[in-house]
Amino acid sequence: MPAVKTTLEWSGDMSFAAELHGHRLTVDADPRFGGRDRGPRPKTLVLTALGGCTGMDVVSLLKKMQVPYDALSVEVEGESREEHPQIYTRIHIRYILKGSQLDRDKIDKAIGLSLDKYCAVHAMLSKTVPISHEVVLNPS
Amino acid sequence: MPAVKTTLEWSGDMSFAAELHGHRLTVDADPRFGGRDRGPRPKTLVLTALGGCTGMDVVSLLKKMQVPYDALSVEVEGESREEHPQIYTRIHIRYILKGSQLDRDKIDKAIGLSLDKYCAVHAMLSKTVPISHEVVLNPS
Repeated sequence: MPAVKTTLEWSGDMSFAAELHGHRLTVDADPRFGGRDRGPRPKTLVLTALGGCTGMDVVSLLKKMQVPYDALSVEVEGESREEHPQIYTRIHIRYILKGSQLDRDKIDKAIGLSLDKYCAVHAMLSKTVPISHEVVLNPS
Repeated sequence: MPAVKTTLEWSGDMSFAAELHGHRLTVDADPRFGGRDRGPRPKTLVLTALGGCTGMDVVSLLKKMQVPYDALSVEVEGESREEHPQIYTRIHIRYILKGSQLDRDKIDKAIGLSLDKYCAVHAMLSKTVPISHEVVLNPS
């Protein structure tokens, strides 16, 4: 598989202008740590990568399984330890689906396939960080 | 340490509109996999997170060490395996600095401190993926 590459140019203070797949993104630190909040924190981006990775798997698998839904969102929450390196000590993924014909078994199966087989970001993180998940259907 | 959270809303096809720290970002798949390239791939975002994380450490440490430089960029390249989950099998970080008073020893020390002690993204990935690095000063 061809290598992928991202380039980050320092753009003053703690911020970096990143380029990946032709898309641009600024990452920056919290003002408490010398940043100006011109973009998200790099470590939180790992959670976004995890949510996007498993979310796309679920979209793709539910399409194959012919499970219709009106809305799908993925929330990812991470808790970090205080000592350096401040790795996540726990990550929780919440899959929220809305629709009138949601098939719970197939949705669980799609999520299980993503987490156990397909999602590379999950596979890379879960060696170091315990990752839990829950499924919420049609929240009020 | 307070938990951080990111939310990704499915926005059609394979794309998700993500929110993190009040910043918005679209992630999307490659057109070969049903995406429309409306944003970067989630897995590549992991490399951007790694580059931003260690880059900010280096900026912060070089400031403390009073090492001046004119430009600093971080390139991160990842190779993935073909089988699922398609995790990175190798990640390489290239630190490129430009300046007339670059102190190689202090720059190496700053990078070493980031990779060995401070960078949480490196600490989380390096259990699963071999990560190498090189330092390039004043490339022609």
